[in-house]
Amino acid sequence: MASSGEVKAAAAAVQNKKVVLRRHVTGFPTEDDMEITVGTAGLRVPAGLTAVLIKNLYLSCDPWMRGRMTKHEDGGMPPDFVIGEALVNYTVGKVLDSTHPEFNAGDLVWGMSGWEDYTLVTQPEYLYKINHSDLPLSYYTGVLGMPGLTAYAGFFEVGKPKKGDFVFVSAASGAVGQVVGQLAKIAGCYVVGSAGSDEKVSLLKTKFGYDDAFNYKSETDIGAALKRCLPDGIDIYFDSVGGATLDAALLQMRHGGRVAVCGMISQYNLEEPDGLRNLFCIIPKAIRVEGFNVGGWFHVYERFEEEMARYIKEGKVTVVEDVVEGIESAPAALIGLFSGRNVGKQLVAMGP
Amino acid sequence: MASSGEVKAAAAAVQNKKVVLRRHVTGFPTEDDMEITVGTAGLRVPAGLTAVLIKNLYLSCDPWMRGRMTKHEDGGMPPDFVIGEALVNYTVGKVLDSTHPEFNAGDLVWGMSGWEDYTLVTQPEYLYKINHSDLPLSYYTGVLGMPGLTAYAGFFEVGKPKKGDFVFVSAASGAVGQVVGQLAKIAGCYVVGSAGSDEKVSLLKTKFGYDDAFNYKSETDIGAALKRCLPDGIDIYFDSVGGATLDAALLQMRHGGRVAVCGMISQYNLEEPDGLRNLFCIIPKAIRVEGFNVGGWFHVYERFEEEMARYIKEGKVTVVEDVVEGIESAPAALIGLFSGRNVGKQLVAMGP
Repeated sequence: MASSGEVKAAAAAVQNKKVVLRRHVTGFPTEDDMEITVGTAGLRVPAGLTAVLIKNLYLSCDPWMRGRMTKHEDGGMPPDFVIGEALVNYTVGKVLDSTHPEFNAGDLVWGMSGWEDYTLVTQPEYLYKINHSDLPLSYYTGVLGMPGLTAYAGFFEVGKPKKGDFVFVSAASGAVGQVVGQLAKIAGCYVVGSAGSDEKVSLLKTKFGYDDAFNYKSETDIGAALKRCLPDGIDIYFDSVGGATLDAALLQMRHGGRVAVCGMISQYNLEEPDGLRNLFCIIPKAIRVEGFNVGGWFHVYERFEEEMARYIKEGKVTVVEDVVEGIESAPAALIGLFSGRNVGKQLVAMGP
Repeated sequence: MASSGEVKAAAAAVQNKKVVLRRHVTGFPTEDDMEITVGTAGLRVPAGLTAVLIKNLYLSCDPWMRGRMTKHEDGGMPPDFVIGEALVNYTVGKVLDSTHPEFNAGDLVWGMSGWEDYTLVTQPEYLYKINHSDLPLSYYTGVLGMPGLTAYAGFFEVGKPKKGDFVFVSAASGAVGQVVGQLAKIAGCYVVGSAGSDEKVSLLKTKFGYDDAFNYKSETDIGAALKRCLPDGIDIYFDSVGGATLDAALLQMRHGGRVAVCGMISQYNLEEPDGLRNLFCIIPKAIRVEGFNVGGWFHVYERFEEEMARYIKEGKVTVVEDVVEGIESAPAALIGLFSGRNVGKQLVAMGP
């Protein structure tokens, strides 16, 4: 997708710092599974190649990267990270050079690139031009990028909300959850979120407009917390965590409810996933449990970008980011996602 | 729903044998949890009551009755069976007397009634007139009744088949499964079934038109059996068993696949359900897992009855029934469902 090989260009080569995978991971990843290496990059697209050379400005840290750190027999889908090469994920960047007709030097873009200073993107079909550079560019790692589109497509297209629906969102202050909650309010729903600290629970209520929220780490019984916050049950559960929270939510779903399953971060670092015990109740209650991934929804990206940019400008959607500075901070920021250390959308600012 | 109390009518009372629940059940039910009692029934609807008096001709034995044998704190939905009263379930019967404008003495009906000779049905909105009495009346406990409608609605409305889809059906020779397989062939799909004996597997291929089938009890690895029979994966899994088969099928689902979950008979007699471990794969593969129950689909019953009767008359749908004679045989027939003793749709013929 993005070649991180040394770029042999006519132009002078510059230093190119990158985050590379040292080994494939099982169980809980550590910073030590990655390292920072320094190579060189040319500042021009090599002759004869159709590609876009990007200077990466912001790196997005996303839970789905965990899956790519493991070695899969079939190569993985999306492909496993390659040992010794820069991690591949969404970034925001500036085009330095392009031989692709749709991109020009100076363009601001977001999309699939590398965790490094400079990436030669050979598949620019996974790059999107930034149409609202009057908003913070970093938003294109979050609310205006993949997590925002995930929230938008998952909530509206999979969840199919109706006004007055009772909505529950896990990982509710995260990059996706904070957007889902605000979209639910825009759609006229009652929305409850769970998060992993009192600080995050407070954010949900004060920043993101959640009607109610609880700290799942301090609840002894998630099912009881759901009954307390949603005594009439749940019409839509937007699930990013799986595991015990999903099991408890299933019991609290209303007839005809929808579970939009976007992620299962509670399970990513387990050698053996938890067993889900309450799926039976989808039969009497005619519940739809639907998995989705943002890859299937880029055809609505343009509509989404316009709508979301308008919400932000109108103050209907608020953003909380957790920004670390410098590529050296990237491995710790990524690992922090899995213990919930981040508050809001985790990203790395690459510096000037 | 159906009052099994003694009917105090002006007409002479007759003997009324019934199957009653002796105790609420946990774990695996036994015949001893039920008993045959003999009461009396009048042959007229008591004065002042709007009801339909039915002589039951065929009793349907269905897995969902298991749930009603357990005591639920909230009374259960549908309601738990009442100790000492006739079990309630679908039957085929003849109207002996009616004070309801839609039913007349002599009508043949199917619907919610009692496991007894005579039932005074006070909620006749759960009774349906039999429009194809040229077909065997017993078919209205199966292919033309609740199981047939379950297959039809679940396959077409939940499964959303497309021509060429790869379909997997568990409990494939049962009342629902045998219909699903034949509907899948009518829809132009490739269909594979699993069942619990070599005899049933043979039936699937010779009687019901399944393209392939396997005996799950003699396979050491259900996942391997699925890979062998459906090497390109599964577009639609029609699930009546849950548990290990569902877990294995999830891994073999294709992108965009649908799991229509109709029942989980493998779980009904467990004190603690098996944990489902592979639900995660619904995210990358964008799979929809949808529970449904026939209660939500009676609005399509008329269309279904016409279409299914035509298929039967055209020889496109074949029926295999497992019929026991006499109400005394009913408890064993019901229990037999849970060990798979029945071959085809299990029902009880009440005799002349």
